[in-house]
Amino acid sequence: MIKTIRYPEESEWTKLAERPAVNQKDLFDIAENVFKDIQKDGDKAVSKYSEKFDGIHYNFSPLGLNVIEDAKKEVSATLQESIKQAFRNILKFHASQAEFVNKIETTPGVTCWRESRPIEKVGIYIPGGSAPLFSTVLMLGIPAIIAGCKEVVLCTPPDKSGQINPIILYAASLVRITKVYAVGGIQAIAAMSLGTESIPKVDKIFGPGNQYVTAAKQIAQLYGTAIDMPAGPSEVLVIADDTCDAEFVAADLLSQAEHGPDSQVLLLSPKSAVIDEVNKELTKQLEELPRKEITKKALQNSKAILFNSLDDCINFSNRYAPEHLILAIRNAEDMIGKIESAGSVFLGNYSCESLGDYASGTNHTLPTNGFARSYSGVSVDSFVKKITFQSVTAKGLLNIGPAVEVMAEAEQLMAHKNAVTVRLNKLNKQ
Amino acid sequence: MIKTIRYPEESEWTKLAERPAVNQKDLFDIAENVFKDIQKDGDKAVSKYSEKFDGIHYNFSPLGLNVIEDAKKEVSATLQESIKQAFRNILKFHASQAEFVNKIETTPGVTCWRESRPIEKVGIYIPGGSAPLFSTVLMLGIPAIIAGCKEVVLCTPPDKSGQINPIILYAASLVRITKVYAVGGIQAIAAMSLGTESIPKVDKIFGPGNQYVTAAKQIAQLYGTAIDMPAGPSEVLVIADDTCDAEFVAADLLSQAEHGPDSQVLLLSPKSAVIDEVNKELTKQLEELPRKEITKKALQNSKAILFNSLDDCINFSNRYAPEHLILAIRNAEDMIGKIESAGSVFLGNYSCESLGDYASGTNHTLPTNGFARSYSGVSVDSFVKKITFQSVTAKGLLNIGPAVEVMAEAEQLMAHKNAVTVRLNKLNKQ
Repeated sequence: MIKTIRYPEESEWTKLAERPAVNQKDLFDIAENVFKDIQKDGDKAVSKYSEKFDGIHYNFSPLGLNVIEDAKKEVSATLQESIKQAFRNILKFHASQAEFVNKIETTPGVTCWRESRPIEKVGIYIPGGSAPLFSTVLMLGIPAIIAGCKEVVLCTPPDKSGQINPIILYAASLVRITKVYAVGGIQAIAAMSLGTESIPKVDKIFGPGNQYVTAAKQIAQLYGTAIDMPAGPSEVLVIADDTCDAEFVAADLLSQAEHGPDSQVLLLSPKSAVIDEVNKELTKQLEELPRKEITKKALQNSKAILFNSLDDCINFSNRYAPEHLILAIRNAEDMIGKIESAGSVFLGNYSCESLGDYASGTNHTLPTNGFARSYSGVSVDSFVKKITFQSVTAKGLLNIGPAVEVMAEAEQLMAHKNAVTVRLNKLNKQ
Repeated sequence: MIKTIRYPEESEWTKLAERPAVNQKDLFDIAENVFKDIQKDGDKAVSKYSEKFDGIHYNFSPLGLNVIEDAKKEVSATLQESIKQAFRNILKFHASQAEFVNKIETTPGVTCWRESRPIEKVGIYIPGGSAPLFSTVLMLGIPAIIAGCKEVVLCTPPDKSGQINPIILYAASLVRITKVYAVGGIQAIAAMSLGTESIPKVDKIFGPGNQYVTAAKQIAQLYGTAIDMPAGPSEVLVIADDTCDAEFVAADLLSQAEHGPDSQVLLLSPKSAVIDEVNKELTKQLEELPRKEITKKALQNSKAILFNSLDDCINFSNRYAPEHLILAIRNAEDMIGKIESAGSVFLGNYSCESLGDYASGTNHTLPTNGFARSYSGVSVDSFVKKITFQSVTAKGLLNIGPAVEVMAEAEQLMAHKNAVTVRLNKLNKQ
């Protein structure tokens, strides 16, 4: 079912860990033109591109608050209860990320510390399409609440009739978002980055999207707007040994593959039989899936790799730096110390990715495309900045001032030196 | 001396808080061409641009370790001692930023936590020019040590004779950097982003630079390399009341202004007399400075603003989001809660910016150009990524599995649901 590679030489690993390249140049050009137009014409340009790209009418204003509140009526009680359960877990885990002030006296009289402050205005993008990704509203809205962001703006494309899925609106109301705009794609990102008559300019933009949205977020950075992270197609890498349950592993691989034909799915094992059994299960389970065609395409680009040892599996995974890493192995917790790069890690047979996607408490906005080498997933940190403070007494100045004078002079910055000298002189006169 | 604006209306604040716009488009085009050439021709192109832009010869290899070690001999004992004192304070403060593992049971049987892992390969850029900015080597090298980065690469342009300032090399040896390349500008950033025969590809690039380097770092992001933050000219905003020492305040403003003609210097006060006195001191102290001409130009673009109240000063500062904020006011610590956006804050008359630039312990790589609204300064966080982990027991799965099934179905992701269902079925059979 998925292509199996047996015992690759280490020299082949880098090649095997590569993702398909996307030609971004054309996308950047398209996105840049939209930014320029929206910078010039504001909402008029947002409206133009909504018609052109999505065939929908932008009505120059946010949704009414009553529309957001009324959405609840269209969400079943069971779904509301499930969403609230997820909300509580996500809140509990993210609340633990808030940082406490820790004052450090680096030298007697010199005290330094950091304090977190919310990013005042943030924008959340939720893609449209067939599935209403309300879970992402929770994943981005909850840390924004904990951080204390003052203004949270949500943009999401409506369906052809101009409606936004009520579950998205229900989730928005749970995370207290009051500004929802029925606009999507590049024009939504550009509008939040630049500001228009109806859509506020934000300091940072969060959220997933297709390659156009991703390109637009990268252009937004050039216009001075921060973004959560660059994004690519979703990925899972499963490491399984003979203690895994092949049925579970296959289900996990399929749950990633159904995202889209470009999803990346990898199975690593030191046991040939595990790969064979998972392959059998894949064939069986695939038949039952409504998104069978999409899923099949993703599996065609996927790989199972047989390695000599579990350590080799882990080493390859570190090289690949997967968004999601599932360790379906004996004593998975013992391997944690060896994990160097991954977005989120799921330990053991019961920790399936779906749990983290929705309700365990961890965030599902994670670095893809190898960015787990340098980026963290979204957390409360993503919604704050940490300001350093320092308080230096006269004694502190006497302690470190002379060293600063020497260093500033060596950097040929005499005014830097002088700022210390005038103070030391005055102290020495006293 | 500096232009004074008296009691501006709040409607004028946004305009007053604007930085001069830089036309980046041409810079991006230049940088992009260098990236393309280096991607194609590697070191050969690095060498070509080193000749072209800087008139120096790139010799296709890092400096010998002996060159780095021997540099110490050319650094005076006093300077070595001062640098070591700074090293200890920076180490002590940054060591306090390392995060501890905090396991959270969000629901019985569902445990989530984060662990930090170093970014494996990082690149540090140190600008050339008249002043050897060895202090930045400490500010970037020390958090890299604490984070545990495996490979730290340093690029810096040599002087016309091909030499790198020995103090930079001494600082590099203190922070255990062994790979130093005598190359600067766009070509250095592109080489670290893409990798060449001699220069390793890194995951993240840090460090200041002129507008070409800044543009190159932004292009590097489009090529998949993370960067510390976008950078602009350095800035200080001083808020001073009648308890300030005008001589100190003037010295602080000048220490910022001497960085370059594009440096941003702002003085805010609720007291007209304070502005007058500081202006007098500026005129007096300016005469003594070796970098008088640069400093004078920066002051011409600078402003003193008289406000009705201290609160207005703080509110304006939050709008401006300065890189450095000095509070030369009565009971400065009482104002901390009101500070919303700033890179680093200096409290009281003895906490001058120079101390933080070199030796108090805080980092001096800070967000400029209003980016303090959304970015933090460099810290240990900048050199790690935080991986989330989750461990779910059978009981945990029974607790949250059903909610995940409901949510996955509502998002029309049936394979996500199925990954839970196959597990619940097996548990229920037991």
